[in-house]
Amino acid sequence: MDSPSNPAAFLARCAPPQTPALIVRRAALEANLADLQAACDRAGVALRPHGKMHKSTAVAHMQIARGAVGLSCQTVGEAEAFAAGGIGDLLVTAPVPPWGAARLAALAAAGATVAAVADSPAQVQRLGEAAVAAGARLGCLVDVDLGLARAGVAPQDAPGLARLIAKTPGLGFGGIQSYWGHLQHGAGRERPHDDACRTLAAVVDALRRAGLPPPVVTGGGTGTAALDLASGLFTELQAGSYAFMDVQYGEAGAGFRQALFCAATIVSARHATHVTCDAGLKALASDGPTPRVVAGAPGAAFRFFGDEHGAIIGADPAPAEGALVWLQPGHVDPTVALHDALFLADEDGTLAPLAIDARRTTG
Amino acid sequence: MDSPSNPAAFLARCAPPQTPALIVRRAALEANLADLQAACDRAGVALRPHGKMHKSTAVAHMQIARGAVGLSCQTVGEAEAFAAGGIGDLLVTAPVPPWGAARLAALAAAGATVAAVADSPAQVQRLGEAAVAAGARLGCLVDVDLGLARAGVAPQDAPGLARLIAKTPGLGFGGIQSYWGHLQHGAGRERPHDDACRTLAAVVDALRRAGLPPPVVTGGGTGTAALDLASGLFTELQAGSYAFMDVQYGEAGAGFRQALFCAATIVSARHATHVTCDAGLKALASDGPTPRVVAGAPGAAFRFFGDEHGAIIGADPAPAEGALVWLQPGHVDPTVALHDALFLADEDGTLAPLAIDARRTTG
Repeated sequence: MDSPSNPAAFLARCAPPQTPALIVRRAALEANLADLQAACDRAGVALRPHGKMHKSTAVAHMQIARGAVGLSCQTVGEAEAFAAGGIGDLLVTAPVPPWGAARLAALAAAGATVAAVADSPAQVQRLGEAAVAAGARLGCLVDVDLGLARAGVAPQDAPGLARLIAKTPGLGFGGIQSYWGHLQHGAGRERPHDDACRTLAAVVDALRRAGLPPPVVTGGGTGTAALDLASGLFTELQAGSYAFMDVQYGEAGAGFRQALFCAATIVSARHATHVTCDAGLKALASDGPTPRVVAGAPGAAFRFFGDEHGAIIGADPAPAEGALVWLQPGHVDPTVALHDALFLADEDGTLAPLAIDARRTTG
Repeated sequence: MDSPSNPAAFLARCAPPQTPALIVRRAALEANLADLQAACDRAGVALRPHGKMHKSTAVAHMQIARGAVGLSCQTVGEAEAFAAGGIGDLLVTAPVPPWGAARLAALAAAGATVAAVADSPAQVQRLGEAAVAAGARLGCLVDVDLGLARAGVAPQDAPGLARLIAKTPGLGFGGIQSYWGHLQHGAGRERPHDDACRTLAAVVDALRRAGLPPPVVTGGGTGTAALDLASGLFTELQAGSYAFMDVQYGEAGAGFRQALFCAATIVSARHATHVTCDAGLKALASDGPTPRVVAGAPGAAFRFFGDEHGAIIGADPAPAEGALVWLQPGHVDPTVALHDALFLADEDGTLAPLAIDARRTTG
């Protein structure tokens, strides 16, 4: 393939039937999948990619085919969609709301291997009761908070919750999870990562001393993957963004290829300073770094210009009305979640539609 | 109904089957629809509500039943979805990309009344050619830029483009549109609104002098609706957000009732400073004002806490894990576009699911 860092020639061969359209460069995606799987294999760590990023059973199957042990999900709805799509081993990586326990138990009763994390006795009890009621078994992992403060027990509380899980009918103690989301993007993350690793190692030791050695230690992410694998602490890595990438993880030096692009059409070109394209807040997430113009408008910057439009500023030459411009999304997960489908693109520009079938927000 | 400004008692009666879930309070929605329709009727102005906000044919039919003349759409995909849902009179309010002309002509050939705006001769030509090829007729309006600088011709260029439309086979000259998005939210918008109205009046005069009196002058929005109706310039109003409302238009003093709420479940409650709910960047748009906590967590503030989570900060008392909290979205259009469905809620808490069926991003 052409240089991943200069995708303009590749993108010039792609012509989606409508815009805004997400395009995933198949060669870059496959290289990313292969690279992280190989790094996990070298480290003796299982890869459980995070499906919250792509929400696509087709991409999940590509990951499984390369050696991933199963999928991480962030919501009950994702777990249901991936199970319906034939993914047989699922971990829900956030505490499950009360309405979700029975739905996960139903997936397990239908034959899937399903585990969920918990950070409270009430959650453990609900998962156990749902599993017993469904005649199924759910794995349950202790979610440990190592600084993000979003979910998870304090490190010293892990053995107590593990003990409860181990004795709760319907549940199997699956180990521990910790997600350090606060370490994924910043510069200078080696030192806090070291500190967090020391705490995580102490949690593992405490569980061993309590007679509950964790079968699985799962967590990590795209931004810390190299550090996570080198730590020797994890049995399982949960990275997600590595497959598609975005401006945010590119700036963080995550070391994977940009695979995801958004095509937009110039729909108005009446101003000397800027032209207007048809990708706005409903096509590209705006919470992270601003999307970047990577082809079709040399030297241009992107600015959100309402719900359905963006401004392409300062291009020289400015793209003509009707022309395509190509954007690198700022933050991949919420960008993909805006779309029902994307196109997987071969190097010759052949596009194959691919459903983002786990994005449904209703069960 | 209870006081619209204090919806806590109403929301306490609503129990969605899963979260995050959008709830629309039917009584508030219907009062908003009735109020704006009545204001339009009093002013002798047709109401063509903007479907980009709700993306729901069910809500569109409620608007038509109350007297709306048709629907405004921002994209070709919305026009297709609303036509499929039985809305027979559609205006696309943004310039149409090249791939869209034939698709609009196909809707017209199938029997819908379809018009689109244009701001360039090339767009006019494409729309005309597509209409002729489909054996259909498309309305075409000159989009006039009165300061937003997103799309639209300069005021002095309107007669020229109108003349081209009038003589282009397949097209009927539908009049002019101007959308002053930059005037919708700011304080002190009366003066710039007056200025814009003077320019718009001059455009209408110039068209009359050119022998092309505009059959329709369409535009306006929720934030300027009262001024737009009082101006005597518009024959048609395009407001959208008035039906559901959000923090942004509430702050702008738009004068409609908050009808849209997002329910979230507390999924982790391990910290004294905050608890975590299951609504994040994939459930609530983050581009506008921060969503507000309106029930379930007294005195609390909301903060985005990742793609699937939010922090509920400083509630006294803090809601328990498993409890529902209720949020007022910051910006309604991109929030609704994140969801496949919402629930229409009666005052007794009875919920009826309602598809957001025009949100599909693929044609």
